[in-house]
Order: sequence, then structure tokens, then C-alpha cells
Amino acid sequence: MDIDLNADLGEGFGPWRMGDDEALLKIISSANIACGFHAGDPVIMERTVRLAATRGIDIDIGAHVGFPDLMGFGRRQMQIDPTELASHVIYQLGALAGITQACGRRMTHMSFHGALGNMAAADPVLAMVLVEAVARFDAGLIISSSASLAIERAGDHHGLRVASSFLADRACDDNGLLVPRKLPDSVIHDSEKVLERVTQLLEEGTVTSYSGRKIPMRASSILLHGDTPGSVALAEAVRAKIEATGGRIVPISRQSP
Amino acid sequence: MDIDLNADLGEGFGPWRMGDDEALLKIISSANIACGFHAGDPVIMERTVRLAATRGIDIDIGAHVGFPDLMGFGRRQMQIDPTELASHVIYQLGALAGITQACGRRMTHMSFHGALGNMAAADPVLAMVLVEAVARFDAGLIISSSASLAIERAGDHHGLRVASSFLADRACDDNGLLVPRKLPDSVIHDSEKVLERVTQLLEEGTVTSYSGRKIPMRASSILLHGDTPGSVALAEAVRAKIEATGGRIVPISRQSP
Amino acid sequence: MDIDLNADLGEGFGPWRMGDDEALLKIISSANIACGFHAGDPVIMERTVRLAATRGIDIDIGAHVGFPDLMGFGRRQMQIDPTELASHVIYQLGALAGITQACGRRMTHMSFHGALGNMAAADPVLAMVLVEAVARFDAGLIISSSASLAIERAGDHHGLRVASSFLADRACDDNGLLVPRKLPDSVIHDSEKVLERVTQLLEEGTVTSYSGRKIPMRASSILLHGDTPGSVALAEAVRAKIEATGGRIVPISRQSP
Amino acid sequence: MDIDLNADLGEGFGPWRMGDDEALLKIISSANIACGFHAGDPVIMERTVRLAATRGIDIDIGAHVGFPDLMGFGRRQMQIDPTELASHVIYQLGALAGITQACGRRMTHMSFHGALGNMAAADPVLAMVLVEAVARFDAGLIISSSASLAIERAGDHHGLRVASSFLADRACDDNGLLVPRKLPDSVIHDSEKVLERVTQLLEEGTVTSYSGRKIPMRASSILLHGDTPGSVALAEAVRAKIEATGGRIVPISRQSP
Repeated sequence: MDIDLNADLGEGFGPWRMGDDEALLKIISSANIACGFHAGDPVIMERTVRLAATRGIDIDIGAHVGFPDLMGFGRRQMQIDPTELASHVIYQLGALAGITQACGRRMTHMSFHGALGNMAAADPVLAMVLVEAVARFDAGLIISSSASLAIERAGDHHGLRVASSFLADRACDDNGLLVPRKLPDSVIHDSEKVLERVTQLLEEGTVTSYSGRKIPMRASSILLHGDTPGSVALAEAVRAKIEATGGRIVPISRQSP
Repeated sequence: MDIDLNADLGEGFGPWRMGDDEALLKIISSANIACGFHAGDPVIMERTVRLAATRGIDIDIGAHVGFPDLMGFGRRQMQIDPTELASHVIYQLGALAGITQACGRRMTHMSFHGALGNMAAADPVLAMVLVEAVARFDAGLIISSSASLAIERAGDHHGLRVASSFLADRACDDNGLLVPRKLPDSVIHDSEKVLERVTQLLEEGTVTSYSGRKIPMRASSILLHGDTPGSVALAEAVRAKIEATGGRIVPISRQSP
Repeated sequence: MDIDLNADLGEGFGPWRMGDDEALLKIISSANIACGFHAGDPVIMERTVRLAATRGIDIDIGAHVGFPDLMGFGRRQMQIDPTELASHVIYQLGALAGITQACGRRMTHMSFHGALGNMAAADPVLAMVLVEAVARFDAGLIISSSASLAIERAGDHHGLRVASSFLADRACDDNGLLVPRKLPDSVIHDSEKVLERVTQLLEEGTVTSYSGRKIPMRASSILLHGDTPGSVALAEAVRAKIEATGGRIVPISRQSP
Repeated sequence: MDIDLNADLGEGFGPWRMGDDEALLKIISSANIACGFHAGDPVIMERTVRLAATRGIDIDIGAHVGFPDLMGFGRRQMQIDPTELASHVIYQLGALAGITQACGRRMTHMSFHGALGNMAAADPVLAMVLVEAVARFDAGLIISSSASLAIERAGDHHGLRVASSFLADRACDDNGLLVPRKLPDSVIHDSEKVLERVTQLLEEGTVTSYSGRKIPMRASSILLHGDTPGSVALAEAVRAKIEATGGRIVPISRQSP
């Protein structure tokens, strides 16, 4: 079984840093890089692309696209007209593609960050408009998304490959959609539990939802974090678990669709 | 004689507009579109690219790249490390290229805006770093710049074509560099005088500098404005003058280098 | 009958302007000045306070407080935690109070702008938190608000005077709350109709709602605009209408509560 | 001998943190709080003021005022017209004063951050304009500044008290002005050397300049940091050193001028 390990990198801004990108880069096989809207700036983006590029083809480089809200880190819902949001998505894709290209690399995928991702995952109309924007920019991009029927259908409609990413430390509802961060236990901090969820995914292809139901869950990738105490160790444990069960860590762009 | 007429478009932000883009688009043959740093936002950028695209191949679409300073409209010098500025340039080029591409068009050129343009024009080291950034992004882009030996040499060095743009309403020093805006009469508001300067350029290939000397001036393009009373009428008069003297309005990308 | 005429001033940003502040200042008796979040910057704020101050005691100076969203002009809903929004409100009040104080004037009132105003007017919990923030900053400030039971009750609770402002060109529902801008005819562009609504308010103390019902409407003030063609002429007509019916234009702070 | 210990607090933005404010607050006697331009946002500002207020009268609360440049952390020079900068200063003072007031405290002082501070310290014209802005806002504020004749004279002229702050880990030239950060050894990372400089200041009232000369140095306060490894321990060592030599830690506002 081939699986990708992805993480959100370059989430600093100006003088500020978030997470341990260097440590994560030794573990993951695809990097989602913030594009200056919810985090990141041109200097951090170029530094992060260069850092990732040192891993060669072992790593996919993609754009992590969010709301224009640095102060809220893209985690606050904003009521922006979908057509206008489409321009915001394309702008961010272009910006990271430009930097990737100037560094002699190719951008392989994109994902939606935070509140934008949650809204798109739950709203078929918004998903359709945003995925169309991605397709207009580059129909060869892969969309990496947490489980969402809306995104999958939009991808099908616009001929884009959608790779399912499993957020091991985030609770989901019975449809597989992430539950809001403000709910208790929506973010799972206990490393043991997170590892159990990964194991269950790998062995059974299921996840236990927020309400306690076991639901089917497919995933081409697992999302890891590097911004909380113990998160890098957990990321390493997830990787070790996969390899121990005979899985191979393979970037999405080199998995067979 | 073939000459391009260029203008800076899409210089609004959010709810605010600047200049009469629709009127200018009927006159010019190349559009420099702001990229969200000194002006412009993703929505305005896409709207402006679409508007320009209605002109078909009669118009070149380029990126107008500036300092990250909306409040100062990119007209205030900022002491940013040249290597960091290079990332800012690439980010902006990528963002506009992304939007242009999503609209089914190609970005042909770029120019530096305001204080960034003035600093690069006067500083060979900065010019070299920034032009290298453009080349790393896309060595096929044309750089449109007011007269500057620094930019021309950097273009030669990095194999980029530099097209000279004449700023008819801005005074220049004896080296052809723009004099600072804060000097009296650095911006020429009298339409008659601006037209005379265009005529002198077309007929003699010279310009009279701020100190009163006649200096040689080559130009592939003339910059027009649309943001002050009478500026659109002046732009039309410049176009009429060129055509009356037998000149042809041709976008830079279709002029022979 | 004493009534105030208020307008939103200083709604430019950096190089951009909105509306004709000079013309409005000859007509109105209170100015709501943007505080740099949805519009305005320190330079524009000081210029606008100085401009208003030339009117002496004939004019009230207040803070127009909005979401931190220049690009969306504060008209897009943002899901920000109410406690955090309270800090945003205080920050903006302090900033304008500082500038007013440095210009030798006193800030008399405040109002909530755009989406923030609409959300607070419709949500008693949010209204209570934000009005408490105003009271914590200065319990002597008057809150100028379109009709809203939520704001009035919060004002009562926290001992703040709430002055009702009538938005003559904006349709309201049967509770007097503004209907969303995206609904057809939510903004009334016909000057005749706007004048009729003012007349009806002055003569009957009623307004005809979006659904066609006549509902009671009290107002200490009427909001005027200066940012669309004909809006200054309309503002003058409203003022003339009030004076013709024997009304006096008096700033809120000098009306008896 | 009475001396103040000050530190720059609240230098995060949105989701990002910088330095260990809690630890520093146990050591220092005055806090300079960022006002949202080079760092800080309304939420962080209120949280920091509240945190500082738990120390009661043992701590002075002041505004740390900088360039409008979050991405550059206010460390990049910007060529902004001094009159416009004056409005920026007043805006920031007002914003923090508003938050301080809403928390039931009083703002006692202010200081200029980063590039703004360096420029004002070295330029008598700029210093005069900015200090006048502080005086227009509140003539009772104390200005905390690294050694600068320009600031001291401007303070004298406008009747403002200027308290000299010693930056123990920053090299200074023969006039006591900070040398630019980009020079080698301009920032002193060796804790031993920093402590020696403090000792020399306390015992001899001198500092050894970047060129190696011993120059006289008066200081009402010493600046401490909390954002690098070992900085909190160093801050504690400085405090211990002062107390060991019989000095008392007293906030500036309670020192006799």
C-alpha cells in the first residue's frame, strides 16, 4: 500500500515562525506551502520551496490556499462572493507557482486551508466554483482535501484529480467532514489516540466519527503537524507505523490515481 | 516608425478605483497591471486582465511590480534586502501570470513601479538582482523601464529584452533618470508641454532634462495616464500626434527588438 | 424638532479617496470617521478631523468602527470571537480619540460600520459585548445606530445613550433592521424616493418596510452619503426639506436625550 | 540608585508569538507594548495590558510605536513624510491608550521602535516633529529612548520628559547612537559581555563604543529581551546584578526626574 504524508509548511510571516519545517521535511512526502494570505510571505515561500527542493523528487510541492486574513490565520469564516474567492485562489496558486518555477521546480498540487477548506468541503456550490478556478489555472494540479463529497464531485466535474487527505488529529462527523474547532475534543491532542486512528485507517479503512460511529474512510495521504509539543515525534511515529505495516511513503503525484 | 503606448491599469484596491481604465484601453497597446502590493487585488487583477483581453492581440498584458506598501502606493522608499525583494518580484509576477493564464492569455512583460522602479533604475546592484529574479521566473519576459543604464545592463547580462518607456509628463535628469516627485515641476501637468515633449522625442529622439540640457532619448513605448483631469484627452492627443506623423501603434512584444 | 444629519467621512485609504467630504461637511452636523480597519489611515484620519474641526461646535466628531478588512471595505461578515471583536472596537475608538485629542477636539460618539453594524444590530449577544467595550472605553460616548432593539437594550444595560440614525436610502425589514445589500432594491438609488422616505419619517414617524408595511421609526439623526453621483445634491435636498418643515439641524451631543 | 528595567512586550501578531512575556513580566518594571504597526494586534494588546496590570503599580505601561510594516517588523527604513509619520505616532498612542484605559490603567510612557527609533534618534528634524506629535497627544507622557541628543533636545523643546534607556546588547557609536543591525557584532549575543556592559554602566556611568572608546552614558532604564535562548536568564542576571550593587528597580514614572 502506497500512502503520502503531507504537512503544512511555511506558516510563518515576517519575523514570526510556526512549526518545525526542517524536522517535518525529513518525514513527509508532500509539502503544502502557505501563499501569503493566511500565512507566508514571498521570502518565507521561497525559503520553504528551496528547503523542500533539497528533498528532490521524494517530495511534492503544493500551494496551501486560504482566506486573506493573516490576523485570523485563515481560520475565521469570511463571507466573500464565490466568484471573487475564485480570483483569490488563482492569485495564490500563481504566486507559489511563480516561486516554484523560479527555483527550478514544478508545483504538483494544492489544498484549501482552514475556514476556506471547511466551507468548500461542506458547500457544493462553493466547491464547484473554487475547483473550477483551480482547473482554469492548471488542469493538471491535484487537489489534496480532507474527505468531502462536494470537493470530489467538483473535481470529477472539472477533470481534476482529488486526493483524500486524512487529518488524524481532527474529529469528523458522520459524513467525514471536520467538526468545528470550537467544539470540545474537535482537535485530538493525545498522541496515542492519534496513532490509533491512523492504525484503524490503515488496517480497516475506517474512522470513528465524533458521534462514535465507524464510517468508511479512504485516504491517499495523512496530514501531519509540526507546531505543537510532541508533534514531530508523533509524525515520526505515524511514519514508522506505516512502514511497520508494510506501507510505502509515496508522494501523491507518483501514486497511481 | 513603430511605437507602443503603455499605461498602468488596475490601480484600485478593494472598493477604491483609480484612473479610467476603460477609456485608456481604447488608446494604449500595452497594459501594466498592478499585482496587489502597491495597488490591485485578485478581483481587480482578474477584472483588468479580462477587460484588456477583449482587445485581443492588439494589447500586451504585463505585471506592474512594486513595494509591499498599499498605504504609500509603492511611492515610499523601503530599505528591503535585495535578495528579499527578488522574492517579492517573483511572487507578484507569478500572481499576475496565474490570473492571465486562467483567463487564457499570456503575460508578455513586466515593469517596476514607483519607488522600486526609481531605486532599481539608479542602483546597478539592485537592478542586477531584480532583473535576475525576472529571468529566473521567465527569461522570455520583456522588461519595460524608463531610461536606465542599470536596468539595460542587467537585462543584457541576464539575456532579457529591455524596452525603453518614455514618461512624457515626468522630468528627468541629465542621465535620463526620473527626478524625485517632491521636486517642483518634477511632474508636468501642462498638456501642451507634455505633447511638445512627445513631439520632440518622435522628431529628434531627444528630451530636455530638468537642468535644461537636450539629451538623447530612445523609446519603444510612451507611458500614458488616466487618473487626472484631462489625462485621457491628453492620451488621445498623444496617440493622434503619433499617427499624424506616420507612426504606428504596436505592442512591444510585436515590435522587432 | 431637532434632528442631526450625519455622514461617514474619511473613507479613503492611502492614495484613494471616496466621497466628497468637503461638500458633505457643509451640510451635516455629525461626522463618523473611519478608523483604519475598513477604511481610513492615520493621515486621512487626522486630515478629516482637522477638516471637521473647522466647523467648530456645529459638528460632532465620532468614530466609525468596522471589521479589519480594507479589501472588503468592512462589508463582508467575518466570524470573529465577540471578545476579540471587543478589543478591535476599543483599539479603533482609542486611535480616533487620540487623533481627535491631538487636534484639540473631543470625540462625542461612535457607530458600527457595514457588516459589523448589521451583525451587532441583529444579534443581542454580540451587541451586548460590543456596547460593553464602548462603555469600558468611555461611558460618555453616544452610540449612533440604525434602528436596533439589540443595540438599544445593550445601551440601556451599560448606561450608554443610543441615538437612532435613519438610513434614508436603505430598505429595512419589519423590525427596522437593514436588509442585506445583495437583495434587489435594498439600496434606494432614486433621489425622489429617498426624499419621500425622509418626509414620511419627519411627518409621520414611520417608514415603509421592504415588505410594504408601515412601521414606526424614531430617529435622532439621518445618514447622508457623498459617494455617488447626485448624493451631495440629495443631501442638500434633505437638509432643505428639514428646514422647510421647521426642523433644526442639531448635533446629537447637543440634542436633549 | 533607582533604575528601571524595561522590555518590549506583545510582539506577536495573530497566531504568532515572540518572546516570553510572562517570564519577563516577573523581572521588569516597565513594559513597552507594540501597537499593531510593526507587531501586535488589538487582541494581543489587550491581553498584554491585562497581563502587565496584574503587577499593579510596580509596572509602567507604555506604547511601542513603529513603522506600518508587520512583514519587516518595523526594522526596515521607510521614507515617509515626517508630518504623516506624526499622524502614525498619534494613532498608535491613541490605540494603546484606549486599550489601557478600557482595562482601568493609565499609559505612562512611549518609545520608538526599530528603524523609526534609529531614524528619529539620528535626525533632529524628524525627532522634533515626532516628539511634538507625542506632546500634542499627551504632554504628560514620558519618552523612553536610547541615548540620543536629538530626542533629548526635542523633549526639552516640547516640555516632555525623556528617560534614557540603555540597550545592553546593542553596540553604539561614539555619540551613543545604536550602530546598524547589519554591521558585524552590532548585536551582542554573549551574555557575559552584556552583563559586563551593565556593570560598567552602573559603576562608571560609561559604555565602550563600537570603535572601542569609553564614552559617558546616563540611563534611567535598561532594556531587556525575552525572545532568544538564554535571554530570560540574562534578564534575571541583570536584575540580580543591580540589586547586588544596592540598586533599586523602580518604574520610570516613579523615579524623580
